[in-house]
Amino acid sequence: MLRAEPLTGDAFRHFGEVIALETARQCLINQGQTIRFHDLCTIDVADQSGRPIVSVFRSSPVTLPYKVTVMERHPLGSQAFFPLDDDPFLVLVGLPEERLRAEHLRLFVTNGRQGINLYKNTWHHFQLSMTKQRDLLVIDRGGQGNNLQEIMLDEDVWIVGVPTTGVEARCNTMRKATVS
Amino acid sequence: MLRAEPLTGDAFRHFGEVIALETARQCLINQGQTIRFHDLCTIDVADQSGRPIVSVFRSSPVTLPYKVTVMERHPLGSQAFFPLDDDPFLVLVGLPEERLRAEHLRLFVTNGRQGINLYKNTWHHFQLSMTKQRDLLVIDRGGQGNNLQEIMLDEDVWIVGVPTTGVEARCNTMRKATVS
Repeated sequence: MLRAEPLTGDAFRHFGEVIALETARQCLINQGQTIRFHDLCTIDVADQSGRPIVSVFRSSPVTLPYKVTVMERHPLGSQAFFPLDDDPFLVLVGLPEERLRAEHLRLFVTNGRQGINLYKNTWHHFQLSMTKQRDLLVIDRGGQGNNLQEIMLDEDVWIVGVPTTGVEARCNTMRKATVS
Repeated sequence: MLRAEPLTGDAFRHFGEVIALETARQCLINQGQTIRFHDLCTIDVADQSGRPIVSVFRSSPVTLPYKVTVMERHPLGSQAFFPLDDDPFLVLVGLPEERLRAEHLRLFVTNGRQGINLYKNTWHHFQLSMTKQRDLLVIDRGGQGNNLQEIMLDEDVWIVGVPTTGVEARCNTMRKATVS
């Protein structure tokens, strides 16, 4: 069973970067009119002549309990998500194992203002909104090459809401395995 | 005298791209849970080994009338601004003339949801918030090389609020000229 952990840079260090203004380098620009929170994450999309692309993902909320069926990763580029509102979202990621198993998963919840930048090859579920339709600004890679791998987990994983303690994910014991 | 024009892709075509979800290519991803508004602008930062950097600009509002003293441009990279709220902002840009003059200026106002992506070498003022402190997500260029040029206008230009017709900029007749 996975409990949703608060998203911190240290806890997330194996998976990517936490995008947060509080920890950014700040400088004053525009004749003192503007604070620049500088260089919030590392866009790593140049492999195989990739280029950065900017998109918006508009996601409907999921209903809990939510069954996780597939995880994915992008071998050729980082993928940054920046929230366009202040509603927390769930970040389900997996350790960098070729044969991802339920025991490799970690579940995080943002504080509403944080974004994330997934490293190349970090297993992840698509970002999960719990309460409402939401927009995330996304910076990832465009270009040639196969930049998507998907994997079925070896066990069913359910993300469930627990009113007293937040959100957690439960794993069934039945094993299954498919890699695509 | 410049009146603020509504920002449209056509009117802005000499200066950069308008970032707008309505005109973006849309595709359904994440098992049908997410609309991807795809590839909203062209990040053009690779000159002289540049890299994309992601920052947030937090700007205090200006008080009208506001005197424009200097315009700037970035010869080595595009600069994209994406609003993190829904408050319109002013975009003051200049035609691509080496000796920028007040007569080359155009003043635009966003509809609150639009962003902009300035082409390399587009003369521009820093983005002007009229009503409140605001955040813009910015994607521009990091790396070596001189990526900033500034120029003083040949006339004083004042941005003034006109309650019945919106916002306009007025130019004094006194000429002056300095290029830095």
